Amino acid sequence: MAQQDRAIRTRRLILEAAAAVFDDLGYDRATIAEVLDRAGVTKGALYFHFASKEQLALAVLDEHVLDIAVEPQKIKLQEFVDAGQVLAYRLRSDPIQRGAARLAVEQGSNHLDRKQSMLSWSVFVEGLLNEAKDRGEVMESIVVRETAELYVGAFAGLQMMSQAFTNRADLSHRLTVFFEHTLPSVAVPAVLAKLKLDSERGAQLDAALQGKAPADAGIDAAVS
Amino acid sequence: MAQQDRAIRTRRLILEAAAAVFDDLGYDRATIAEVLDRAGVTKGALYFHFASKEQLALAVLDEHVLDIAVEPQKIKLQEFVDAGQVLAYRLRSDPIQRGAARLAVEQGSNHLDRKQSMLSWSVFVEGLLNEAKDRGEVMESIVVRETAELYVGAFAGLQMMSQAFTNRADLSHRLTVFFEHTLPSVAVPAVLAKLKLDSERGAQLDAALQGKAPADAGIDAAVS
Repeated sequence: MAQQDRAIRTRRLILEAAAAVFDDLGYDRATIAEVLDRAGVTKGALYFHFASKEQLALAVLDEHVLDIAVEPQKIKLQEFVDAGQVLAYRLRSDPIQRGAARLAVEQGSNHLDRKQSMLSWSVFVEGLLNEAKDRGEVMESIVVRETAELYVGAFAGLQMMSQAFTNRADLSHRLTVFFEHTLPSVAVPAVLAKLKLDSERGAQLDAALQGKAPADAGIDAAVS
Repeated sequence: MAQQDRAIRTRRLILEAAAAVFDDLGYDRATIAEVLDRAGVTKGALYFHFASKEQLALAVLDEHVLDIAVEPQKIKLQEFVDAGQVLAYRLRSDPIQRGAARLAVEQGSNHLDRKQSMLSWSVFVEGLLNEAKDRGEVMESIVVRETAELYVGAFAGLQMMSQAFTNRADLSHRLTVFFEHTLPSVAVPAVLAKLKLDSERGAQLDAALQGKAPADAGIDAAVS
């Protein structure tokens, strides 16, 4: 059992090192040697968990969608907003999220299917919006799939812009601006009035999800 | 004079070849040799116009902002919508636009300043939105710079998603969806009601700007 724990920790260690390498160098320039160097593990340990660079990249992409789970809220659209804000917050600090973001936006210079990552996100968002619509929170006129893909596609661009301008320090704020511009067209007025869109929310929710005090909450407050 | 014309044509030929190479291979993998091969010009001709790969990339990035000029409209916000739709249309067919799009979203794996391209676009959009606001077309509550950067950042992501999903065949439609979700928060109601947001507009405007019949207008109609 202790051995199994160690294996899980080692796998995570390798995954985080790989994600950091993908974030810094991109898929093409990333090497197994660089991952080994950062993770401080043996070649044998790495190949026990991952057969190739491609497997590493796919595991990073898998992990980052699984990673976002937010507390259930009375209003389903609030969960949708919260998932976005937690992701925005983690893109600043979590190596897996950062590496996955870069892999997802790199244009076809590798054999990874970039579509897959954006498709997984779209399905996730579509699920949340469909639930919200079933509850009467979303305007009848909304075509849920189109709206879900708008959020996913636009978010990908906003995080890219924020990365280039401020190393993602202003991403939470940019996401709040995006929600403020779009949600009046999506949410019914009574729900819209109750949504919390502030950019400090990501840090606070992340701290709560990690079961620790919101030590980092000040970071967001400083940029917004 | 004829010689000068030829020089301009050659420069354009090299620029288009370079843009196509950047689009296919990305900055890192692009080589001068590949550009020469596609342009079918001599090394001497290329180096007469461009000193290096970096100069080529910067020229491609420069060109693509200059390229968008739309017909003046009674409503300034319509010009803003039109610029977006013409760009969306050209991203499907114009090699300069395609190459520039890839250069602009590549993450720091080269020495180009990615910020510059997004900044140029933001300034362009900010100018249009400020004019629109001065005319009373834009809600007083709108902070023009934030809104301009939202459009530029989100557009970058939407074109990326559309590129991955349909090689940009559905980009005009995705842009229409984006405008439909955001403009009700931006335009005053009387202006909003008059805006033409349909996804065929890019093809029609492009044809008009090129001074030719809208031969390609059917493409957009087919995807929307």
